[in-house]
Amino acid sequence: MKDLVNSIELGVSQRKGERVTRPKVWLKNEFVRVGLAEYLCTYVMMVFGLGSVAQVVTGQGEFGQYISINLGFALGVTMGVHVGGKVSGAHMNAAVSITMCTFGRLAWKMLPVYIFAQLLGSFLAAGTIYAVYYEAIHDYCGGNLTVTGDRATAGIFATYPAPYLSLPAGFFDQVFGTAMLLMCLMALSDQKNKPAAAGSEPVAVGLLVLLIGISLGSNSGYAINPNRDIAPRVFTAIAGWGADVFRSGNGWWWVPLVAPPIGGILGAGMYRALVELHHPPVYEQGEGLLEELKELKEETDHKNNCENACV
Amino acid sequence: MKDLVNSIELGVSQRKGERVTRPKVWLKNEFVRVGLAEYLCTYVMMVFGLGSVAQVVTGQGEFGQYISINLGFALGVTMGVHVGGKVSGAHMNAAVSITMCTFGRLAWKMLPVYIFAQLLGSFLAAGTIYAVYYEAIHDYCGGNLTVTGDRATAGIFATYPAPYLSLPAGFFDQVFGTAMLLMCLMALSDQKNKPAAAGSEPVAVGLLVLLIGISLGSNSGYAINPNRDIAPRVFTAIAGWGADVFRSGNGWWWVPLVAPPIGGILGAGMYRALVELHHPPVYEQGEGLLEELKELKEETDHKNNCENACV
Amino acid sequence: MKDLVNSIELGVSQRKGERVTRPKVWLKNEFVRVGLAEYLCTYVMMVFGLGSVAQVVTGQGEFGQYISINLGFALGVTMGVHVGGKVSGAHMNAAVSITMCTFGRLAWKMLPVYIFAQLLGSFLAAGTIYAVYYEAIHDYCGGNLTVTGDRATAGIFATYPAPYLSLPAGFFDQVFGTAMLLMCLMALSDQKNKPAAAGSEPVAVGLLVLLIGISLGSNSGYAINPNRDIAPRVFTAIAGWGADVFRSGNGWWWVPLVAPPIGGILGAGMYRALVELHHPPVYEQGEGLLEELKELKEETDHKNNCENACV
Amino acid sequence: MKDLVNSIELGVSQRKGERVTRPKVWLKNEFVRVGLAEYLCTYVMMVFGLGSVAQVVTGQGEFGQYISINLGFALGVTMGVHVGGKVSGAHMNAAVSITMCTFGRLAWKMLPVYIFAQLLGSFLAAGTIYAVYYEAIHDYCGGNLTVTGDRATAGIFATYPAPYLSLPAGFFDQVFGTAMLLMCLMALSDQKNKPAAAGSEPVAVGLLVLLIGISLGSNSGYAINPNRDIAPRVFTAIAGWGADVFRSGNGWWWVPLVAPPIGGILGAGMYRALVELHHPPVYEQGEGLLEELKELKEETDHKNNCENACV
Repeated sequence: MKDLVNSIELGVSQRKGERVTRPKVWLKNEFVRVGLAEYLCTYVMMVFGLGSVAQVVTGQGEFGQYISINLGFALGVTMGVHVGGKVSGAHMNAAVSITMCTFGRLAWKMLPVYIFAQLLGSFLAAGTIYAVYYEAIHDYCGGNLTVTGDRATAGIFATYPAPYLSLPAGFFDQVFGTAMLLMCLMALSDQKNKPAAAGSEPVAVGLLVLLIGISLGSNSGYAINPNRDIAPRVFTAIAGWGADVFRSGNGWWWVPLVAPPIGGILGAGMYRALVELHHPPVYEQGEGLLEELKELKEETDHKNNCENACV
Repeated sequence: MKDLVNSIELGVSQRKGERVTRPKVWLKNEFVRVGLAEYLCTYVMMVFGLGSVAQVVTGQGEFGQYISINLGFALGVTMGVHVGGKVSGAHMNAAVSITMCTFGRLAWKMLPVYIFAQLLGSFLAAGTIYAVYYEAIHDYCGGNLTVTGDRATAGIFATYPAPYLSLPAGFFDQVFGTAMLLMCLMALSDQKNKPAAAGSEPVAVGLLVLLIGISLGSNSGYAINPNRDIAPRVFTAIAGWGADVFRSGNGWWWVPLVAPPIGGILGAGMYRALVELHHPPVYEQGEGLLEELKELKEETDHKNNCENACV
Repeated sequence: MKDLVNSIELGVSQRKGERVTRPKVWLKNEFVRVGLAEYLCTYVMMVFGLGSVAQVVTGQGEFGQYISINLGFALGVTMGVHVGGKVSGAHMNAAVSITMCTFGRLAWKMLPVYIFAQLLGSFLAAGTIYAVYYEAIHDYCGGNLTVTGDRATAGIFATYPAPYLSLPAGFFDQVFGTAMLLMCLMALSDQKNKPAAAGSEPVAVGLLVLLIGISLGSNSGYAINPNRDIAPRVFTAIAGWGADVFRSGNGWWWVPLVAPPIGGILGAGMYRALVELHHPPVYEQGEGLLEELKELKEETDHKNNCENACV
Repeated sequence: MKDLVNSIELGVSQRKGERVTRPKVWLKNEFVRVGLAEYLCTYVMMVFGLGSVAQVVTGQGEFGQYISINLGFALGVTMGVHVGGKVSGAHMNAAVSITMCTFGRLAWKMLPVYIFAQLLGSFLAAGTIYAVYYEAIHDYCGGNLTVTGDRATAGIFATYPAPYLSLPAGFFDQVFGTAMLLMCLMALSDQKNKPAAAGSEPVAVGLLVLLIGISLGSNSGYAINPNRDIAPRVFTAIAGWGADVFRSGNGWWWVPLVAPPIGGILGAGMYRALVELHHPPVYEQGEGLLEELKELKEETDHKNNCENACV
């Protein structure tokens, strides 16, 4: 065993030598490193998500249907997780970040970095999609940017409730949708239960988002994410849709901002209370060698990530 | 090798130390531990499944089609398997539990716990979806909750047969659908054949449920699960749809209750009779080191699970 | 290392002891063992495939569209591979079996067993789907079982060419479709290239069948499989559709019987000629330890499989 | 450890012996070996992609919709990656090859081989699909091969912009689409972040292409690939559609030729600038044994691949 370890250390130090030739742009500041990754993954997720709505709306059914939007956000999340990955954890959702802080999986002092990066990514993605689909949108609505009506286009960017939905019911809808999201996310990452297979987490999280869109989407467009909704809404207010984006839906705009973090904490807490806290300790389960090694490695990783995330 | 094992034991005991700080809510009673997990995974599966039907029905084609319902139940099962996972095995279906008992994979004394948890999860999920889609349902049907007719909404919760279907044909439909489910589940978990890859079981089971919905769904809505059908049916009877939910379809309600367990045992038995019993013993196959290790580990796991499940 | 191996052998012999209690129905005859598995996986694939067509046709668009049929056969193949798995290799298609024989991956003397099992599975699946959808079919066509016309139902079971398709063009269509199938199957199983990940083969093969249905399906219904077509066709001839099933499409019936094996050999040969034969020998590639071990294991497995398959 | 290594070397030399009997067609020339694989995978991807468009267009909605085309190209890419796999890396896209050269992952001297193989594969695939769907196309358009109008069929082969799209906006659309493609491809292969699980790369890349089609496809048909567009366009010019294929869309043809390589370099550069360059060196992260071994192996593999590719 000693020899193997030695030869690996040798390999590493050789590679260390190679690495001297690597571009020396390494940021010492972990805040910036994590923030950049969180920004980019949120941007990627939002570009694909909003792009799919733009395509369905302006294509008038020729280039996709409601399920395309479900797939656009779902696979957008999948690619976002690949992009943000191990650097920031790819939350892309302030409700996820706040829940992670609440349950001790993220340092509270990192929260402002995450939220700022998520807002920036969402805002710039809205701007990008407006640029990419500028001619399509103006061709579709005849240059008349409206929030309601036959050729409304504000729904490409932010969510608006169904006509029948009251504010309290919409608030419950957003709390519940986000609770289901975080409850399942907790299960997908619970290494003592049946987590997503190592490496398949991005696809598993994408399938979860697809499912929520298919099952809990029609009341109010399943924002279940504060930055996914408020940043594009502010963009549309500036870009020509005006203050109607805040007035519409009986002043709907604050619901996707406030309800998701509450739902996230409730859902994650429910999973912990009903499942996670009752796992027997590993050493009683008599699991084999490999499991022990795997878990050991995960704890090391986690500690490293924490150290990385906390500077 | 010794050193490695020692260092692992060290790691474990160190972690043991850490664990002292974990919340001490561990239930001694395995019945409750397993029951809670089985309850939560059934609840998750049913919320997503029924939610997808509610969205399609009340959305009138704008928020999904028949295939959305197939995906809703399929991915709902996937997430349910992640949630119930290794704790209860995530049956979510009394027909599965009864079949597992019949073939010695679950202790009979655990069966009441499973069935109670499954009924409770299905019932509460029906109530939750009624709450989430309360305004949508009432907007759709004008407040008139009916089982049949143009704006019927009982089909959101329980299954009803197609107009052409006789009771005997429907009974056969449910026996056969559940037989295909259990036959394939047996194959997906047969470690001597070509099982679902380790970690991908939740997705594989979801694909199977998707397939049954696509291929064997139009006769009577593929309940293939007693609790998935009876619990929401009872909920609708109480919540305002009345006794019609039992009278409709020529008294259809008992078919998804009785037929699935029969079909499950037949299907699983067919797989055992035609494939599983004929596997040559492993030591004749001359499989390599890794396979042996894997199987050893699985048997240990299985024994541990049994011990866990039987207290 | 010695200790580890010893302890494994011990484990095996202990398990050997346990196995004495297993039901003693092991067939000595490998022909029967392989034939039963090949029968069951073909049956499973065909039940799901034909079931999805029956549902789309009799549901008149309410229970799925063309893509449901693509998914029905695709996921049917996935489940079939899980069921037949390592026992028979789950060809489910005589064109695959003939190609495997041609390239030395299956003993020619096994071919009759495979073809008989595939024909039997396809025939009984057609009968089962007719039974399951008996009332649906008769409700749809008013009891008038026809091959052509507005309410034709023969297309639920066998394939029929589009009105514009000539026999030579249809023959080319079937040769080409099967060539693409086998070319990609060769790639999916080429361990020196980029094969399907271990354990994910069933899903990979399903995706391939989905793709062929989406891209090469509209000319003649992508039979690309002799038994998938002829067995249900014979069933319909007997069950009430009459000799029209052979006359229709200008005597189309023999095309899906003859063209696929030719296409299969051409496609697999093309992959071998352009890619497989040019792989450098492994020991020149300087691959690591793990790769060597993996390949060693695969060769052993293959040898064992051959021995199993050849008795 | 020594014994294990010895026994492996023994195994290899034994296999070396076996290999003497393998057909001796090994090409010494790596240019040809890589070129053949790149040709075949591009051909496979294009056959499936163009086939799905042909089926949707000539089937008039009966055999698939817009999403079928998304799936046709997505799964076509998946199968292409399996076919070209480790031999050529399965770029199938000159924009990918040029980006790889720019970032030092492919030797510039290999670029002409890749581009020639990609053009040839795309051209022959267009010819094949025209042959397979010859009768369907002529039945659909009445033998009148046109680029615009009600029964236009040129769009089966090459991309054409939406009526509202100006050339500058279309250029930006193609730059941006390809940027998103390469940005995500970089993440999918970044071993220090959250790459696609080993073995699942073909499916991950397919999902990415599906996503781009769903989100960024309606403006101009998401060519995001020079050879995918120009080769079939030249084919149609020769095969009967005439010079209109170059005139249409205000001379659109050069945009998918020029914009994608620019976008590819920008997107990949963005990922490097914001994420990849900031990864801390591995030996600071304190990752476990397994990670080190994995990375060591990857570097060896990469070196070998480079040697193979550069001969």
